[in-house]
Amino acid sequence: MSRNIGVIGLGAMGRGMAGSLRRAGYLVHVCDVRFEAAQAFAADGGVACATPAEVAVQCEVIVSVVVNAAQTEAVLFDSGGPGGAAAAMRPGSVFVMCSTVDPNWSIATEQRLADLGLLYLDAPISGGAARAASGEMTMMTAGRPEAYAKVGAALDAMAAKVYRLGDKAGAGSKVKIINQLLAGVHIAAAAEAMALGLREGVAADALYEVITHSAGNSWMFENRMAHVLAGDYTPLSAVDIFVKDLGLVLDTARASKFPLPLASTAHQMFMQASTAGHGREDDSAVIKIFPGIDLPPGK
Amino acid sequence: MSRNIGVIGLGAMGRGMAGSLRRAGYLVHVCDVRFEAAQAFAADGGVACATPAEVAVQCEVIVSVVVNAAQTEAVLFDSGGPGGAAAAMRPGSVFVMCSTVDPNWSIATEQRLADLGLLYLDAPISGGAARAASGEMTMMTAGRPEAYAKVGAALDAMAAKVYRLGDKAGAGSKVKIINQLLAGVHIAAAAEAMALGLREGVAADALYEVITHSAGNSWMFENRMAHVLAGDYTPLSAVDIFVKDLGLVLDTARASKFPLPLASTAHQMFMQASTAGHGREDDSAVIKIFPGIDLPPGK
Repeated sequence: MSRNIGVIGLGAMGRGMAGSLRRAGYLVHVCDVRFEAAQAFAADGGVACATPAEVAVQCEVIVSVVVNAAQTEAVLFDSGGPGGAAAAMRPGSVFVMCSTVDPNWSIATEQRLADLGLLYLDAPISGGAARAASGEMTMMTAGRPEAYAKVGAALDAMAAKVYRLGDKAGAGSKVKIINQLLAGVHIAAAAEAMALGLREGVAADALYEVITHSAGNSWMFENRMAHVLAGDYTPLSAVDIFVKDLGLVLDTARASKFPLPLASTAHQMFMQASTAGHGREDDSAVIKIFPGIDLPPGK
Repeated sequence: MSRNIGVIGLGAMGRGMAGSLRRAGYLVHVCDVRFEAAQAFAADGGVACATPAEVAVQCEVIVSVVVNAAQTEAVLFDSGGPGGAAAAMRPGSVFVMCSTVDPNWSIATEQRLADLGLLYLDAPISGGAARAASGEMTMMTAGRPEAYAKVGAALDAMAAKVYRLGDKAGAGSKVKIINQLLAGVHIAAAAEAMALGLREGVAADALYEVITHSAGNSWMFENRMAHVLAGDYTPLSAVDIFVKDLGLVLDTARASKFPLPLASTAHQMFMQASTAGHGREDDSAVIKIFPGIDLPPGK
């Protein structure tokens, strides 16, 4: 395959992934709704494009790292306008979809692109901006063998771990959704537990020390409660991300009429935090919904 | 202090702890409602006693490892009968309370014993039977400096990690309760996530592999979902333990009118599993409340 590759969406994750591809020797064609973000990236190597269609003309592999399904639709189809990638992609090209989306939407999108002679990879990502920048993030992928063949080594250039979960779209997004279910419930549970500790007068630092060495620990407790102890709600990942992602989890389950008692409870907690004015704070700010406690102050 | 020490309650945890003390060179006086359990232990060294009072006559340090507060009350006071430890303990002796209990009950018990001239240590334990047997469990302790001085090195003989959380009773039981809140919610969340995966047709083994290497992981997901994948619900810790422990969590919070949305939801899930007939199965059997899925069969 060509060493040209496209990356659309230069947020915290996309910027890191584009950088990983550039370090791996690819000529990276980038595009973002903020054109200056594309120009800033290309100043150190690569090509800044004005539209997804411009990227598609040059690249047989396009990696899409936008916020959600609606933005991915805009990248592909531009509401039928001239800027969409799909109409400009050569037959046999592959679209690598890295957003967190409803798995049923991802399955449908694979089919829509197949009808245009295009390949598709269901490839949500995980790990945060720092790991995206260092090429050490995780990809949860599923797709046709031809799609994997077409992208070649590009996935490994971006991710330390590439899980192959199926030979058609869906399983990647399903596993990502389930990871988000657990991540969201665990953040809310960590907040609930820490809040109870504060209510009961337990020393927060001691509680953190014991829990992180006990069977009650989770990856999220250890990571997010450090923010609460520091009183630092700078958004590494915001409350509103979990309003969205747990909403996707519930939508997915609703389609098969499946009950999710804990995910629905946690979703209510994040919505309560968002409506109370904390939507753009770090997701650990969900602890602010609990009344009658004094949170550790910021440093 | 004397090298005599008492252990009351020879269940899976108490038996291991008594063994650790014996290996450390103590003469261990043991007692259990099943006298044959005390005799079996003493056959390899130590003294089998018929009642807590018999233990108390010989030992200035008594470690109590029974199921709950009601059993601890029976150990101490025998409903005013002759078998209780409290009336037989010499002034200045210390009672080490290792059960998971309402922290407010633990605080009150310290005072009741102080009124009798006795010391008390709030010392719930964590880690499971295997770690209790090898002396590698965790203790979450709080109590007066005189109580710590009296027990000396005995705590370290039983536990790899002894957390000292305060200079009066309460903080040990509070941290233990908060650990149980997280443990219970995480088991129920793990079950909910795995159930959704099965409903959506995701390969359970692949889901387990991805989650245990992602931000959605918890100690409980990794440990308990292995039981579900193996179809093995042999109770290492039973559903009914979390009916009890999450109930204690909710009782504690109710006393200070504190809301716990996730703990209350998880409690309902464990009660649903128990009433459906799974109370004595492994706590991972909470996944059996989810309809419309096929669980991995037993080997």
